[in-house]
Amino acid sequence: MVILKKINMIPEEKKFMKEAIRLAIMNMENGHGGPFGCVIVKDGKIIASAFNEVLKRNDPTAHAEILAIRQACSELNTYQLDGCIIYTSCEPCPMCLGAIYWSRPSKVYFAASRIDAAKAGFDDNHIYDQFNLPLPDRTIPFEQIMQQEVREIFSRWIDMKLNINY
Amino acid sequence: MVILKKINMIPEEKKFMKEAIRLAIMNMENGHGGPFGCVIVKDGKIIASAFNEVLKRNDPTAHAEILAIRQACSELNTYQLDGCIIYTSCEPCPMCLGAIYWSRPSKVYFAASRIDAAKAGFDDNHIYDQFNLPLPDRTIPFEQIMQQEVREIFSRWIDMKLNINY
Repeated sequence: MVILKKINMIPEEKKFMKEAIRLAIMNMENGHGGPFGCVIVKDGKIIASAFNEVLKRNDPTAHAEILAIRQACSELNTYQLDGCIIYTSCEPCPMCLGAIYWSRPSKVYFAASRIDAAKAGFDDNHIYDQFNLPLPDRTIPFEQIMQQEVREIFSRWIDMKLNINY
Repeated sequence: MVILKKINMIPEEKKFMKEAIRLAIMNMENGHGGPFGCVIVKDGKIIASAFNEVLKRNDPTAHAEILAIRQACSELNTYQLDGCIIYTSCEPCPMCLGAIYWSRPSKVYFAASRIDAAKAGFDDNHIYDQFNLPLPDRTIPFEQIMQQEVREIFSRWIDMKLNINY
């Protein structure tokens, strides 16, 4: 009996990743968006789960991870995911990786890589490549103007000494 | 009279950046969040404007650019910002840079740099640095599991031939 129980046990990490993958498949099959799912776990319980809703919401930021992070923060009533673990079916794109750093979870598990995503036609890897290019070489032109005006505002922000750790 | 008019004219780029900066200052003075503002312009008109609402919304993704992109897409009823120009008071953080690439505007103007933001205590530059580190060297641990399962789902996605350009 004990042996049987052990055979049926799935490590926690696999269990939660399976749920993220289930959401990815469901989303693809429903035609609502790409095959991407994400769950966020705290104290062994799922506190947020989401899938890609870019098409459904007409919102290019509605990736599974972004939606799950917003949901978890709303649930916890804070903008920080202390002690939370993120399970996402694919390596986060640069936007989602940035959001993960701003929300500061304890750990991130991912399944497919950005290269797998590129082969499936998604731009993640292309966007990663853009990050290290000088401004004139990017596919979207970026131009800096009026820098000094905002430097002065940042000086005022420093003087306010709010010490908020975004 | 003609000469006076010319003296008072502000180039369009400056006019819209001034509005982004005005939003940044307003937000800081109201105590709602950091000094960051953004406007999105199409055909010479502002179609979306936002400021950092991370603290107000308890949402780490509520940066000025993300909120403005979501607002503009909602206004245009699409997930793509064709022909739009983004004016942001600071160089976009990695999350916002990613969102800009997914939304594909024509151009981006920014004022302060990521280095200016770092000096004011914001993590933007630190997060940029994390992007090029191998997974074990990152400040947040990332681990890959169950890659093959999602590769198979991506194969099914390719077979569906939806050809959606996210």
